[in-house]
Amino acid sequence: MTETELIRRIRRIAAEGPVNKAVVHGIGDDCAVMRPRTNEDFVFTTDFVLQDLHFTLETHKAADVGHKALARSLSDLAAMGSTPVFCLVSLAVPKELSGRWTEQFYRGLLALAKRYGITLAGGDLSRFEKVIVDVMCCGRVPRGGSLLRSGAKAGDRIYVTGELGGSALGLATQKGAAWKRHLRPEPRIQAGLELRRRGVSACMDLSDGLSLDLRRLCLESNVSAEVWPSLPITKGATVEQALHGGEDYELVFTAPARKKIPLSLGTPIGVIKAGTPGEVFYDSQKLAVGGFDHFTQAGG
Amino acid sequence: MTETELIRRIRRIAAEGPVNKAVVHGIGDDCAVMRPRTNEDFVFTTDFVLQDLHFTLETHKAADVGHKALARSLSDLAAMGSTPVFCLVSLAVPKELSGRWTEQFYRGLLALAKRYGITLAGGDLSRFEKVIVDVMCCGRVPRGGSLLRSGAKAGDRIYVTGELGGSALGLATQKGAAWKRHLRPEPRIQAGLELRRRGVSACMDLSDGLSLDLRRLCLESNVSAEVWPSLPITKGATVEQALHGGEDYELVFTAPARKKIPLSLGTPIGVIKAGTPGEVFYDSQKLAVGGFDHFTQAGG
Repeated sequence: MTETELIRRIRRIAAEGPVNKAVVHGIGDDCAVMRPRTNEDFVFTTDFVLQDLHFTLETHKAADVGHKALARSLSDLAAMGSTPVFCLVSLAVPKELSGRWTEQFYRGLLALAKRYGITLAGGDLSRFEKVIVDVMCCGRVPRGGSLLRSGAKAGDRIYVTGELGGSALGLATQKGAAWKRHLRPEPRIQAGLELRRRGVSACMDLSDGLSLDLRRLCLESNVSAEVWPSLPITKGATVEQALHGGEDYELVFTAPARKKIPLSLGTPIGVIKAGTPGEVFYDSQKLAVGGFDHFTQAGG
Repeated sequence: MTETELIRRIRRIAAEGPVNKAVVHGIGDDCAVMRPRTNEDFVFTTDFVLQDLHFTLETHKAADVGHKALARSLSDLAAMGSTPVFCLVSLAVPKELSGRWTEQFYRGLLALAKRYGITLAGGDLSRFEKVIVDVMCCGRVPRGGSLLRSGAKAGDRIYVTGELGGSALGLATQKGAAWKRHLRPEPRIQAGLELRRRGVSACMDLSDGLSLDLRRLCLESNVSAEVWPSLPITKGATVEQALHGGEDYELVFTAPARKKIPLSLGTPIGVIKAGTPGEVFYDSQKLAVGGFDHFTQAGG
């Protein structure tokens, strides 16, 4: 199959996906073209999914990789409280995967795209000795409405959506619901929209583990955090996995203590403090920086 | 160096770069935030630059790789007749390149960014056994003003900016002006803007070689093309290199014969015909599909 034929095939698969009216031209030109409505901001994120770092060909089917690649970026759109608009997908694959594997990759990606109404509007395609994916997602929010990392204030409560540690448990056991959760993470788009409507003070998604990500949120907000030992932990997962395990793709957010946050939206896990920016305490002990750091490889 | 420290350093480098007012939040959050002005469309493109496919560590310095990665995407913005707004840069590097090499990469990229006023607004960072880069660029055009591949009509003249074959010559000889041209391609942003103002009928950039790229333009426009044997060829390059050599990053465009196109903007190289869509004739001979196809690897 030539690149031109492959692009034609991807274009056909993409045409079965959702069409966002903001996308005026999709696949087929040098660029995708988007027409904004008035009084909207747009948010943009890009995330790698790399073979043998974020997945292996042995454990992940092509459709799983497609799902995960889009889910990672959608999770960032969720963290901003935005509505998905379109994505660009850059994919490089070994020659032997350029046929059926690539098609199944796009089918997995498009199945998730359909559920969140996001248009596949373009990307790049290349050959490489390993599978590398980079997905750019664009979302929209009412002007000035983005949920940022930088808005947390001393005294705010800290919350997380859902449970923690499930993805790390799944990665360790490779079975059951936890493994499925690791394979097919669900971006918290609806929760993000609800948090924006409620006007929380700060928000980010948990991709590298609570300890590291909360530290990043605190650094941006110039605050520290006290986490209580009452975390919502996935059944079977350890506290260690809940604190430092990556890829839960839940949202961590903060809100003034007076603001009502229903338990169905988020579990309170601690409180924001003044103090050394970026320090995170758990059960009154200062937490060593864990989580997934690509260059030190501490944690999971 | 940890990922957090590296990101802090990149952020400092990025802060020295141009700041586009449309970018409300840059590096430091889950997403970059852009605020559109009214009556504008936005165009988006993403392009890989992969080690040992698009460059080697032996022939390209870190700053060359940074330049090339941004230039490839800017060239797509040029093809749409757009003004650069912001970029997202996804970079994965081996651990041993995560210090000085990575810094020099961003310096090379930012030097080009400054010249075209494009803001580095975010991206992703990872570790991998080889260097992989994926740059997403966003540009803006007056509403409905994008130059597309699909507007060429039978009877239109075909033009190219600059000269052809220089990059392929440089790659073959690795010396002189041609090699410099291959190392540091210059995106034709100004030419693209001028073509939009003049209202040409179709435009695209030449990344994979005239024969393949013109074929793609013809397929989108449902036309064929007749190329004359009077191509503007870089001194020392062969006709073969001018027809099939990749990475010239010039613009190929079409305009009605009555429209005045100054020679300083583009050299006429042929004429659009009705006929089998996608067929390209050179010197009255049907041209085999050459150029760079990632999966068949025909041509250079």
